[in-house]
Amino acid sequence: MLLPKAFEASVEEDYWHLKEHVQIWDVSCQRQVEIVGPDASKLVQLMTPRDISRCLIGECMYIPIIDSDAGLINDPVLLKLNDNHFWLSIADSDVLLYAKGIAIGKCFDVCVEEPDVYPLAIQGPKSEDLMVSIFGEEIRKIKFFNFRVLDFEGTKQIVARSGYSKQDGFEIYFKVHENYFDKIELGEKLWDTIWQAGKAFNISPGCPNLIDRIECGLMSYGNDFTLENNPFECNLDKYCPSDASHEYIGKTALSKIQNEGVKQRMRGIIFDGDPCPATSQPLKVLSKDNKKIGQITSGIFSPRIKKNIGLSMILKDHWEIGEKVIVQTHDGDKRNGTITSLPFPD
Amino acid sequence: MLLPKAFEASVEEDYWHLKEHVQIWDVSCQRQVEIVGPDASKLVQLMTPRDISRCLIGECMYIPIIDSDAGLINDPVLLKLNDNHFWLSIADSDVLLYAKGIAIGKCFDVCVEEPDVYPLAIQGPKSEDLMVSIFGEEIRKIKFFNFRVLDFEGTKQIVARSGYSKQDGFEIYFKVHENYFDKIELGEKLWDTIWQAGKAFNISPGCPNLIDRIECGLMSYGNDFTLENNPFECNLDKYCPSDASHEYIGKTALSKIQNEGVKQRMRGIIFDGDPCPATSQPLKVLSKDNKKIGQITSGIFSPRIKKNIGLSMILKDHWEIGEKVIVQTHDGDKRNGTITSLPFPD
Repeated sequence: MLLPKAFEASVEEDYWHLKEHVQIWDVSCQRQVEIVGPDASKLVQLMTPRDISRCLIGECMYIPIIDSDAGLINDPVLLKLNDNHFWLSIADSDVLLYAKGIAIGKCFDVCVEEPDVYPLAIQGPKSEDLMVSIFGEEIRKIKFFNFRVLDFEGTKQIVARSGYSKQDGFEIYFKVHENYFDKIELGEKLWDTIWQAGKAFNISPGCPNLIDRIECGLMSYGNDFTLENNPFECNLDKYCPSDASHEYIGKTALSKIQNEGVKQRMRGIIFDGDPCPATSQPLKVLSKDNKKIGQITSGIFSPRIKKNIGLSMILKDHWEIGEKVIVQTHDGDKRNGTITSLPFPD
Repeated sequence: MLLPKAFEASVEEDYWHLKEHVQIWDVSCQRQVEIVGPDASKLVQLMTPRDISRCLIGECMYIPIIDSDAGLINDPVLLKLNDNHFWLSIADSDVLLYAKGIAIGKCFDVCVEEPDVYPLAIQGPKSEDLMVSIFGEEIRKIKFFNFRVLDFEGTKQIVARSGYSKQDGFEIYFKVHENYFDKIELGEKLWDTIWQAGKAFNISPGCPNLIDRIECGLMSYGNDFTLENNPFECNLDKYCPSDASHEYIGKTALSKIQNEGVKQRMRGIIFDGDPCPATSQPLKVLSKDNKKIGQITSGIFSPRIKKNIGLSMILKDHWEIGEKVIVQTHDGDKRNGTITSLPFPD
């Protein structure tokens, strides 16, 4: 499944629109891994260092998933639909087969499937008002990373306050109801309803915006981190408490890494020079004496900061905030840069 | 990773060339799942109904992999590198995370990884002579679905007689040797060496050819069958012996399906009318009284048979060879068709 990368004339126009108005994003490529059955919570808990017993029904929880070497398998959002019923709303890559494999290996009494759910995101500062105009005032009561089951055309739809931007917003986990044989019909009705109501809020079609994502420090699996990385390298320390009382896959490996410390960490870099086009390949990051100390995995020009910015994995001796570095662009050009914290400072 | 779909002016020109000469295919998207360690054979055996104890070192074996409901996870080629060392050369989709999950669940002592291996296929009737001109006479001794470790520029490379066509051919499981820091350099050297030597054999670049694949009845995971299908529906009966003595995932479910019989099976269909463009969406197959009885999942015009042909999943009451059916094209056109066996008859 593909995801669009820009709608207006440029990623920058989309960016400003997202920060000021409201956008509708078809993020149906964001698949759900449904885990349901008597051992569902046992299986989910085994996959993550986070304590999922703190997640209540109707809540979302960001859960890094690691393997036995503490390598990151994925970083989905968990939705607790019921005590024995969970969705993992996954990032790029896959969790379905991993969860299936573990469930089979452990002889767990669970069903692991990909349901017919196609998320639609409504993002931007005007998203609340737009959503209220369709679903009513109940929308305002949905707190960040909570969801409610709301009615649309006689079907029950899960609506969460969440999304892959930091401009406020909602995700509708659109699912076809059995009364509707034709999911295209109901899906188009949902889109059209939002589009019509959205005109008053200057709605536009959109998609996860690269400038916004990088500014906000939102990592992308497969781009900024992979199975080769552990949660500490990705600054996910707070989701990996050293005093976790539950057992999970990779606990021993993760504890060892925590004790020994990591060799590299995700950092921001602000760098000089002409606006940098969106990076399709990592950019080398060098120390002042020209040694490779890391790479920018996602980089772009920020029209707000008016400098180039990038998410980067940087070696320990150079990851201090304020450290001066050199960024080498694909044409060999060398730019002066500075290590920053994430998200990028206002 | 992407795979090219045609090189010459058309899929048909590529087809004739493949049947008469030799082609070099970059099939590096065909990933390997490496399973190594004391429990490696236990893990591989658990994943398939086939008895892998019959696979010798240096042999390949086609192994359907199923889940606990007997749904097909993948249909890779197994390479036995050593008693404790296997590669699963997978089709589209993934096996890495599934194998990892099972290994973790079962606490198996194995390492499951994706090695830095980039398969290159040499396919076509002149492939043996071409390969001999590079690797020597030993090539002729490699039997179908066997492999040998041969030397290329001082590196050891696995060369198997196999490939996703039925025109004879080899797959070089190109791997970077540690002496070569730069894999692009060695990879280009391999390609250039084959290309230079291939000129005498009228070599062309190529890729799995849709006409050849369909004619030969070579199914494609994700297109012709998915997790929703079981091995019997895909005519993989001979790989699922009912008297298998080993335990494997899905054994109970598979046995139940075998006893009850399947509701649909993969069949060939030859159908009339103008040459049908390659199908991107399934074509409906109807009975003479216009009821839906199946679908063509991969269809194209065969320049050899001079009719349209398709791989199709057909309901039981209509799957007899010779059954007359109707194929509905995307523009609503209805064509007369006949059920055939697979591969398509000469």
